[in-house]
Amino acid sequence: MALDGRVEAAMLRAMALVQSEAAPPRLGAALPYGVFPGGARIRPTILMSVALACGDDRPALTDAAAAALELIHCASLVHDDLPAFDDADIRRGKATVHRAFDEPLAVLTGDSLIVLAFEVLARAGAEAPERALHLVRHLAQRTGMPFGICAGQGWESESQIDLAAYHRAKTGALFMAATQMGAIAAGQDAEPWEELGARIGAAFQVADDLKDAVLGAEDMGKPAGQDVAHGRPSAVTELGVAGAVAHLRDILGGAIASIPACPGEAMLAQMVRAYAEKMTPARLTAAKG
Amino acid sequence: MALDGRVEAAMLRAMALVQSEAAPPRLGAALPYGVFPGGARIRPTILMSVALACGDDRPALTDAAAAALELIHCASLVHDDLPAFDDADIRRGKATVHRAFDEPLAVLTGDSLIVLAFEVLARAGAEAPERALHLVRHLAQRTGMPFGICAGQGWESESQIDLAAYHRAKTGALFMAATQMGAIAAGQDAEPWEELGARIGAAFQVADDLKDAVLGAEDMGKPAGQDVAHGRPSAVTELGVAGAVAHLRDILGGAIASIPACPGEAMLAQMVRAYAEKMTPARLTAAKG
Repeated sequence: MALDGRVEAAMLRAMALVQSEAAPPRLGAALPYGVFPGGARIRPTILMSVALACGDDRPALTDAAAAALELIHCASLVHDDLPAFDDADIRRGKATVHRAFDEPLAVLTGDSLIVLAFEVLARAGAEAPERALHLVRHLAQRTGMPFGICAGQGWESESQIDLAAYHRAKTGALFMAATQMGAIAAGQDAEPWEELGARIGAAFQVADDLKDAVLGAEDMGKPAGQDVAHGRPSAVTELGVAGAVAHLRDILGGAIASIPACPGEAMLAQMVRAYAEKMTPARLTAAKG
Repeated sequence: MALDGRVEAAMLRAMALVQSEAAPPRLGAALPYGVFPGGARIRPTILMSVALACGDDRPALTDAAAAALELIHCASLVHDDLPAFDDADIRRGKATVHRAFDEPLAVLTGDSLIVLAFEVLARAGAEAPERALHLVRHLAQRTGMPFGICAGQGWESESQIDLAAYHRAKTGALFMAATQMGAIAAGQDAEPWEELGARIGAAFQVADDLKDAVLGAEDMGKPAGQDVAHGRPSAVTELGVAGAVAHLRDILGGAIASIPACPGEAMLAQMVRAYAEKMTPARLTAAKG
């Protein structure tokens, strides 16, 4: 996928907005630390892919939407790693923000990245204010309560978990945002793109469960076996490894079938297939093959 | 001030957006707990007052702006009370969110309230998308890095504090947002309204320092003596009590002088005078009188 450079350029432009000689230096350093180097940048890449498939007639708005979505994702990682949640020491192969800086700065880094996401959208909206405002609303709904990633994380504080609502909010929400914000940025109707996002999100969740259960910490760049350690629901504990792999393939087949008719349909199907390869841990593919 | 009802109605409409039978119930309860009953609602009241002084031709947008600003303020209180920051047990006369619920839910409450602020603005923008987008950008800049309240809080993690930048960001930012978003919501230029907000914010900071130093916990609804306990800079430690009271009066005189020419000029001057009365602790006024 040749979009990597476009995603990183958008992230760099966004992060430049929070830098100033007159800002508190440690928080100023913690923000880029939480964002660079990135992980797979899968959500903004999907967003840009859908925008391109829809014509991408406002590329600056697409770039802003992609950066905004990834900023929210980075914020959620910083807050999820906090001692009160996963108490994680390592993320993307280096110390988590609260370990590298401190806990107050990690809270403020997450807060600042959330705010920056909306600022980026607002700044890009001059030429198409209605689309930009729609992007603000959509991103907010996929991030906050009652159905965004905050709600997803909130389910982990309940004694009775609604599993479907939990996965749809915690993992699905930002993938639905990825496909739908790509459509909105390109001036298209968002609704037909929800299923593709939901299915990619569901596949990603199953793949994450598989990785957590099967891979070691070295392959993941973060501690493994966290689902069992934290008593979290997982497709692997539910279906077993082979069952989870089969389930992952079913979901991705459905994802390809759900792609709305558009000029970029074949390109998107290829993208989903590529993610399917990437998402299935190699030693499982080998075991199946 | 007859705006109290209008502010609370706007807050209730905003909070209704995050409620759902299908959301995680404890987080669903923590959000309104962090917002109701409110404190003085001084920021949204100032915002509405300025909007009225500017004609208030889009009252729904004014309401949304007022609610959004107060949601950011409430979010900042929830996060500032966390164990990693002030570790406060009591806020507005009841247990803080992390004490009444737990720490993860307090982090998520703050996050969700920040996100809701931007959702509220986006939803109100249909009739005037450019104004709404300007409000999103302005609120984001007053909230995040490098100059918003997150930056203000971030200064507390520095060994060398730029005191002017610290106060301007931590307390001033949301008062500047109050006057300027009021103008923006009413379709007016924001720039002439910055000084009034900055001065009210500076006055509020001095008044808060005075209250923290002079009043007991019972009068404040939260623990007193926190500035000294946390080694925070304060106008009282700098100028003494009498010096701080004199400084407060100077600032408020300048605030009244800074009000831009507009139909509601006299009403706004009256509002600032009323706040001046409210902000000066009664026993200090008595001592001076």
